[in-house]
Amino acid sequence: MSFNELPAHVWPRGAARQEDGVVTVAGVPLPEIAEEFGTPVMVVDEDDFRSRCRDMARAFGAPENVHYASKAFLTRMIARWVDEEGLALDVASENELRIALAADFPAKRITVHGNNKSESFLRLCVEAGVGHVVIDSHQELAELNNVAGELGAVQDVFVRVKPGVDAHTHEFIATSHEDQKFGLSLASGSAHKAAVDAIGAANLSLAGLHCHVGSQVFDAEGFKLAAQRVLGLYATIYREQNVALDYLDLGGGYGIAYVDGEEPLDVAGVAADLLGDVRGVADELGIPAPTVVVEPGRAIAGPSTVTVYRAGTIKDVHTSHTTTRRYIAIDGGMSDNIRPALYESEYDGRVVNRFVDGEPVQTRLVGSHCESGDILVGDAKWPEDIASGDLVALAATGAYCYSMSSNYNSFGRPAVVAVRSGNTTPMVRRETVEDLLAREYE
Amino acid sequence: MSFNELPAHVWPRGAARQEDGVVTVAGVPLPEIAEEFGTPVMVVDEDDFRSRCRDMARAFGAPENVHYASKAFLTRMIARWVDEEGLALDVASENELRIALAADFPAKRITVHGNNKSESFLRLCVEAGVGHVVIDSHQELAELNNVAGELGAVQDVFVRVKPGVDAHTHEFIATSHEDQKFGLSLASGSAHKAAVDAIGAANLSLAGLHCHVGSQVFDAEGFKLAAQRVLGLYATIYREQNVALDYLDLGGGYGIAYVDGEEPLDVAGVAADLLGDVRGVADELGIPAPTVVVEPGRAIAGPSTVTVYRAGTIKDVHTSHTTTRRYIAIDGGMSDNIRPALYESEYDGRVVNRFVDGEPVQTRLVGSHCESGDILVGDAKWPEDIASGDLVALAATGAYCYSMSSNYNSFGRPAVVAVRSGNTTPMVRRETVEDLLAREYE
Ligand SMILES: Cc1ncc(COP(=O)(O)O)c(C=O)c1O
Ligand SMILES: Cc1ncc(COP(=O)(O)O)c(C=O)c1O
Repeated sequence: MSFNELPAHVWPRGAARQEDGVVTVAGVPLPEIAEEFGTPVMVVDEDDFRSRCRDMARAFGAPENVHYASKAFLTRMIARWVDEEGLALDVASENELRIALAADFPAKRITVHGNNKSESFLRLCVEAGVGHVVIDSHQELAELNNVAGELGAVQDVFVRVKPGVDAHTHEFIATSHEDQKFGLSLASGSAHKAAVDAIGAANLSLAGLHCHVGSQVFDAEGFKLAAQRVLGLYATIYREQNVALDYLDLGGGYGIAYVDGEEPLDVAGVAADLLGDVRGVADELGIPAPTVVVEPGRAIAGPSTVTVYRAGTIKDVHTSHTTTRRYIAIDGGMSDNIRPALYESEYDGRVVNRFVDGEPVQTRLVGSHCESGDILVGDAKWPEDIASGDLVALAATGAYCYSMSSNYNSFGRPAVVAVRSGNTTPMVRRETVEDLLAREYE
Repeated sequence: MSFNELPAHVWPRGAARQEDGVVTVAGVPLPEIAEEFGTPVMVVDEDDFRSRCRDMARAFGAPENVHYASKAFLTRMIARWVDEEGLALDVASENELRIALAADFPAKRITVHGNNKSESFLRLCVEAGVGHVVIDSHQELAELNNVAGELGAVQDVFVRVKPGVDAHTHEFIATSHEDQKFGLSLASGSAHKAAVDAIGAANLSLAGLHCHVGSQVFDAEGFKLAAQRVLGLYATIYREQNVALDYLDLGGGYGIAYVDGEEPLDVAGVAADLLGDVRGVADELGIPAPTVVVEPGRAIAGPSTVTVYRAGTIKDVHTSHTTTRRYIAIDGGMSDNIRPALYESEYDGRVVNRFVDGEPVQTRLVGSHCESGDILVGDAKWPEDIASGDLVALAATGAYCYSMSSNYNSFGRPAVVAVRSGNTTPMVRRETVEDLLAREYE
């Protein structure tokens, strides 16, 4: 594949390279966006984002069965897109909930996560009337029951279960082992106890169980195994308590392709497989099959967005007596994308303002931060005619980039714009040094 | 050592535990600060910070020989402390420079770093009249000479050299190998060429060479070896160009103790050793000994600050049939301190609102973020009577915590306060959800 070709499974669905070499997203030339908004700039393909909402909704039977994990990328505009597509929303902190409410996201379609929800957060959940609170500990169960009691409400809840399944993913983002902070153990009986307690609690109503097997999962097996194990608890509850739970929340983790060599998870196939399996297992267990709900973040937001940088300093470095590596520095880095430093993540980068067709040379794309680990693309073979001033874009930066961005080296966060049908809508303005100083006392 | 004792080499110099079990810093009880400013809150011991400035100044012969690396922790208040102590300032981005100037830091005492300085950044350097620009590439050398020419100025510069010394530190923060983005290679002749070009450039004046061997360095050897190698280039320049360079900038990296078992680097001893060695090598080479300047960030800012959190959910997790681990969740995490997730850094945590003296149990201190890698203290033995509502503080969070903090999960950044002689001065107010939404378009 030529360096000028954009791998379609990595880039936004609306991305294309024009005959003059310029890359457009949703019909908008990226150099025009760079010109108007400066660099780095994050460009969100609204139709890409919405189309992935719809793909997920179709795969899982109904839009409300898909809870977009807002931690991946949240602004009020994004919350409104999710709402308009009919999806539900997963929030994991008090401020994520506040932002969703500020966007008028219907509280009933919000599911609330968190391993350490404060009393004020629980109170806000009940007052706002969120659809489900996912209970993460016995302590929270008692607190939420109290809070709901004080407010004269009955709160629908899920209980988060640790099924003990490891979906073979990166250690840092695997969340279903026993030895981690989230959820209640299936194996130890802790999850069972919480479920029984929730059923017995005057101001809670147990609507389902939740589990999350990891991130960047590429096959159905981990989800299926977790579902099977958790359904065992549904059967116990059904027999013992005579309660049929409506929902089975299987969390997020649907894998996407960050680089050409990767294949995104086939959502439709995995969903069909998973839903069939859940029905089968429920039948075997003699229980009513719960509605499966999922919480994809990355698979919806990730591929929608590209980050456009401008190349600055270019330097050839001797890596041995006979080999060199080209270092291309761009005007952002680990402040706008910590994922390579944090998870050794890889990205697909392309020049987007013109064709480049020089000989491929060993290249490393680095940021402008004062840290040698500030590397965005560690090891690539890129044409040697990439020059200072060229625009370099990384694809699939929609999830966990903006949401984890920092002000390291006092960098302001990039501007974010949405593109659709040839139009550009600013979403977040670039952060300035005045913004950084605004919270300081004189 | 009892859990109630604060390891003096890790905690701020002004930290003490009162007879009632409450920990004070500079005479201010931490629970009072938590009450007034909420949690998490970062508490900076101003006298600790200033005393480390003075220790460094004494060790390296004069305050202006010590360039505080502002990337570690920068606010205008901190820049003013550094100025009042007479130190110089190292900035590594246009915004760090702007913040220093906004604090009226004298431009002549500012040294400017960056592997990818934009033209506007270089222009600001010359216009503001900064003391030294550290040239990182041939490209920058030519650009800075042009910019200075246009502005009718002669800019004093250092050239950043890669001495090829690895100070045996964590891979991500080691910056002197050849295969990295910073500086110009000594071995390949690239540094020599840049030095000669800088001497020949009409609008540049070469004042010295710079190198940086890594972070968290615990002995003088890496610094000495680097200095020796770089001094070889001084001798070449002296012989060939008849130019004696005034300064030798040996960068930062002075190690501090994060946990009880570590010993901070003995700055006075290392400095004496290093200065003696530089004089000796210069004598041997028959060149005038340059003034050694250094750029400590962590060793000045790190130990000054503690982050105070409130414990929330506490959970015992089975790690095998017979063992458990206690998970204590606090109301911050990887958003205010990414270092454990990024570098596997360790921290010393203590309960600061009272004595705790239960049996030690295997404990992990985790944050409130929706990510299983959100761990602040991975493996500790802490008293089993720590309870929800207790205040837990981590020491040595002054460097690379606030400066690398993010809004992950839409968390606002903590409040920062300075304490001195029993008084508390707010430095940065807590970030609110309104702040987060302020840059969004409706
Ligand atoms: C409980 C839960 N749900 C959903 C998600 C979203 O995961 P992803 O973005 O990989 O789909 C996460 C991610 O950590 C999670 O912890
Ligand atoms: C050039 C330079 N100087 C100074 C420092 C400060 O290092 P430390 O905070 O470890 O002293 C760094 C850190 O990366 C650096 O790259």
